[in-house]
Amino acid sequence: MASLFTKIINGEIPCYKIAEDENYFAFLDIFPLSKGHTLVVPKKEIDYIFDIDDTTLSGLMLFAKKVALAIDKSVKCTRVGVAVVGLEVPHAHIHLVPLHSLHDIDFSRPKLKLEKEEMEKIAATIRENISKA
Amino acid sequence: MASLFTKIINGEIPCYKIAEDENYFAFLDIFPLSKGHTLVVPKKEIDYIFDIDDTTLSGLMLFAKKVALAIDKSVKCTRVGVAVVGLEVPHAHIHLVPLHSLHDIDFSRPKLKLEKEEMEKIAATIRENISKA
Repeated sequence: MASLFTKIINGEIPCYKIAEDENYFAFLDIFPLSKGHTLVVPKKEIDYIFDIDDTTLSGLMLFAKKVALAIDKSVKCTRVGVAVVGLEVPHAHIHLVPLHSLHDIDFSRPKLKLEKEEMEKIAATIRENISKA
Repeated sequence: MASLFTKIINGEIPCYKIAEDENYFAFLDIFPLSKGHTLVVPKKEIDYIFDIDDTTLSGLMLFAKKVALAIDKSVKCTRVGVAVVGLEVPHAHIHLVPLHSLHDIDFSRPKLKLEKEEMEKIAATIRENISKA
């Protein structure tokens, strides 16, 4: 069965899309740890990040870099942190989390609840900064 | 001034070394979130991970993959998680954290205190699994 993320990539489940190319896809996490929290995934459905072949893994990291630098310009933060946990959805994904303190990367704390309008605005700003890069 | 990690790489500060090549270095975190928690750093001293040039960043991820797969074989865990926070030492570093639950990636919780002998044993096991790969 297709993973939740594959359904998002295929447009079967809506998302706040940030960027896409032939091999990768990025969209806002709907349970954000901070404003601008984005997920970056390979289109290839592989559960564990370290099972991804070298070429795809390198490309994933460079795609994440492009997105992260745009997030840096789009939301107020000290820098963008990275996390790969992968205990929930069996489709490897990199969390890009705008950081203000160490605590921001704690996945066990309550997530933010943002309105649709705010999520759309954040996504649009990040997309604009990607296109300008 | 050289960063703490550059001093570790240069052998001026001792560490539980895991792996090294021309461009990268890995060693046990002495404040581990879980047993086998390892730091992977580029030898080039760059503060922010997304300021690293593409070639070095891709290589860093592939070096981390090699180390992570050896950690998987060396310590009991569901999988190895990844985190880059970078608010403390101004030298980009990837945390590889053996995970049992989401909570393991919370940097604000108390760190483990392991004896020197145990740290040495863990490092030796991971090194052995890297050399076998």
